[in-house]
Amino acid sequence: MAERQHRIAFIGLGAMGFGMATNLTRRGYNVTGFDAWGPTRERFLAEGGRIVDSPAEAVKDKDFVISCVATNQQTQAVFFDGEGCAAPALSRGATLLIASTVSSSYIQSFASQLTDAGRHDIFLVDCPISGGAQRAADGTLSIMASGADAAVEKATFLMSEMAAKKKLYIVKGSIGAGSNMKMVHQVLAAIHILAASEAMGFAFHLGLDPVKTREAILGSRGSSFMFDHRTPRMFTNFRPVASALTIILKDANIITSEARRNDFPTPMSSIAEQVFLDAFGRGFGADDDSGLVRLYTGGVYPTSKNPAIDTSIKSQEERLAMVIALLEGIHLCAAAEALAFAAQLGLDLAQVYELCSDAAGGSRLLDLVGRGMLQTLSVGDTVEQGGSLRTLANDLRAAVEEAGRVKAPVFLGSQANNMVSITARHQSLHNGDSLGKVIRLWYPNAKHERP
Amino acid sequence: MAERQHRIAFIGLGAMGFGMATNLTRRGYNVTGFDAWGPTRERFLAEGGRIVDSPAEAVKDKDFVISCVATNQQTQAVFFDGEGCAAPALSRGATLLIASTVSSSYIQSFASQLTDAGRHDIFLVDCPISGGAQRAADGTLSIMASGADAAVEKATFLMSEMAAKKKLYIVKGSIGAGSNMKMVHQVLAAIHILAASEAMGFAFHLGLDPVKTREAILGSRGSSFMFDHRTPRMFTNFRPVASALTIILKDANIITSEARRNDFPTPMSSIAEQVFLDAFGRGFGADDDSGLVRLYTGGVYPTSKNPAIDTSIKSQEERLAMVIALLEGIHLCAAAEALAFAAQLGLDLAQVYELCSDAAGGSRLLDLVGRGMLQTLSVGDTVEQGGSLRTLANDLRAAVEEAGRVKAPVFLGSQANNMVSITARHQSLHNGDSLGKVIRLWYPNAKHERP
Repeated sequence: MAERQHRIAFIGLGAMGFGMATNLTRRGYNVTGFDAWGPTRERFLAEGGRIVDSPAEAVKDKDFVISCVATNQQTQAVFFDGEGCAAPALSRGATLLIASTVSSSYIQSFASQLTDAGRHDIFLVDCPISGGAQRAADGTLSIMASGADAAVEKATFLMSEMAAKKKLYIVKGSIGAGSNMKMVHQVLAAIHILAASEAMGFAFHLGLDPVKTREAILGSRGSSFMFDHRTPRMFTNFRPVASALTIILKDANIITSEARRNDFPTPMSSIAEQVFLDAFGRGFGADDDSGLVRLYTGGVYPTSKNPAIDTSIKSQEERLAMVIALLEGIHLCAAAEALAFAAQLGLDLAQVYELCSDAAGGSRLLDLVGRGMLQTLSVGDTVEQGGSLRTLANDLRAAVEEAGRVKAPVFLGSQANNMVSITARHQSLHNGDSLGKVIRLWYPNAKHERP
Repeated sequence: MAERQHRIAFIGLGAMGFGMATNLTRRGYNVTGFDAWGPTRERFLAEGGRIVDSPAEAVKDKDFVISCVATNQQTQAVFFDGEGCAAPALSRGATLLIASTVSSSYIQSFASQLTDAGRHDIFLVDCPISGGAQRAADGTLSIMASGADAAVEKATFLMSEMAAKKKLYIVKGSIGAGSNMKMVHQVLAAIHILAASEAMGFAFHLGLDPVKTREAILGSRGSSFMFDHRTPRMFTNFRPVASALTIILKDANIITSEARRNDFPTPMSSIAEQVFLDAFGRGFGADDDSGLVRLYTGGVYPTSKNPAIDTSIKSQEERLAMVIALLEGIHLCAAAEALAFAAQLGLDLAQVYELCSDAAGGSRLLDLVGRGMLQTLSVGDTVEQGGSLRTLANDLRAAVEEAGRVKAPVFLGSQANNMVSITARHQSLHNGDSLGKVIRLWYPNAKHERP
């Protein structure tokens, strides 16, 4: 392909960036990399890439530039503020792909800084990614891209090399829309990551066998992608480190920060962020985020069941059902918070649902209630879907009550219980109401109009 | 006085009970005590009391029985389920004062158990106490008493010996009303106890001097009884142990459990409970509850300011103002949650306000907004009081944003921010709306009718 003639600069060769850059190298592209960390530079050379000593050198004379550093702050330093920064060195008419997860307000300010510097010639694409290091290396990521039509058009062939078929999502709206889409996905991801630890911690306090509990949950309505993905590492002392706590902490902070900017409540994501900060303060920041389970079990995670618990009161089946109800309640509120936030941000809701349900944000509950919630938002009518809200509310309440009895923390479960209770106080709740009605807490208007 | 002829049984000689019982002894009463713990028994003998070996022996032939054990479970064991339990041994027509903090549902079931056993002759009084060990010993407690008129009448002289003048509150309603009143007070107490730690933790992360911060807060709208009471012990390694974490954890569990039973949302108390469980899991249960500050500072509490923080962005005054705004937002939501819960439970709201504002649940914010909230509940109109809700919401939001930036956990502050935000989505929020309007989250109806 003629496109492979293009020379590409790749800035940020971390867990994701390294895989993406080496994938492009293997596919025949000429990739010049930059990363501040020595060992990564060596590894990239060994994989056939080129390495230079500054962002400016990397982008010089390149038609395409991909940046995949970790944060807003790093992106700012690499392009504008740091030594040897890239923006002044970008070649005329270059296409610039920002693949980092940054806030939409930051990527908008990034675009302004470029134009303020007179660089109207740059084709900027806001294209955060999802899928983990393995899919980055395989070129099968999900990518959420937005920007001017001409910019997205120029970048599409390159994003297609990095994304799975059908997982390159062109997000309507300009710069910032892609980041908003990723952020909405991370609402689900952040809550589900913590929910996996909370459920396993609750199971521990109930004296349930962890391996059997995991299996039973995967076959239940409490299942999620993150539960499936994170729980195995709880059994291997949180190794390997597939995704560090600091990453999801950063994403949670983007969510709550943008929510505050939009006057939008995110009670579920906010609790997750606070618990992540708690874990960060304990020194768990560099650990795999499956290590959050230690917050729920007194600092350790024994891989056998807890023998010290009075389990005489309820049968094993009843206890397992409580863990599942806890997850159902949490995942229900996570789905509502994510979809309502997407509506608030003006995203294409059908695309949000399609993307989230088929990615790391997926859960059985989202599958059950997602379409119904979208109908509630757009048509203004609660359709029957996913079962009775009152029944789930009762089961969730009983689970939270039992957690208090056995002194198991259930930050998210307790919050979900209160959110359902607040919903019921503001919207009359009938026996026939289905699960999706809980979205009314976040989006009280009958139809999808911003409150 | 002739009343001093009465012989009194006192069961449960813990931090509170010991002070109460020795106070009665000093005032000339003949007190027979029981406690399971040896050293306490010795101490009580040394103070001139009598000690027996079972609850049954203690109550035998006594006209008045006071029980002040720690929990529902202990009360149940002492009177009905344990060896040598007291109920069968109660003398005919005895007056029984349950001073423990128990749930109203438990004290109601206690009453039923007595009548089921044919003991219609017992004059039962539900009379939880508040004020701490020193005031227990001085006979200057707050007491919240309810029961049949005849029972309350019989017990009044004895409660007057234990309560401060004007702090013996006769609560309208039958058995359970006193416990409900105490529970509403503990909504404030639990949230304010945690808020004191959260504020001092935030100040630490902002690089503020802890002693100066404490002084400034005490002179501000962020002040509370609990902040004043708890913060000094943060400077003395959480000693002496004035009130163990397990006590407020138990009270928080009573609040959330009764809230679930009443379908009432307690988002603020629930967060407090979850953080208490977190601390309990870390092994802080027996420590003074001022030790909660360690959750916010990485496990230690350095009594000097944190040198490792980038404080260049904001002035010291701006940072201090953020800590105060955090406390104001938390105390505002605490006041709303407590008063709305009291309305839900059918308590006399004026009495609730009088009792709470002049006790350990007091705060500057409650003084500012309490009467306005009561008017909102009863008249259905938001009166101008305490300033603009929108202004406080903006300050609170900025404080929570800054906390995220410096990686300081602010569980309660973040929750308060979200609760204000949810209120604004369900009730149109105008620039002129005063602080009290936030009670609409918990009590959306225009007037004080149960939703």
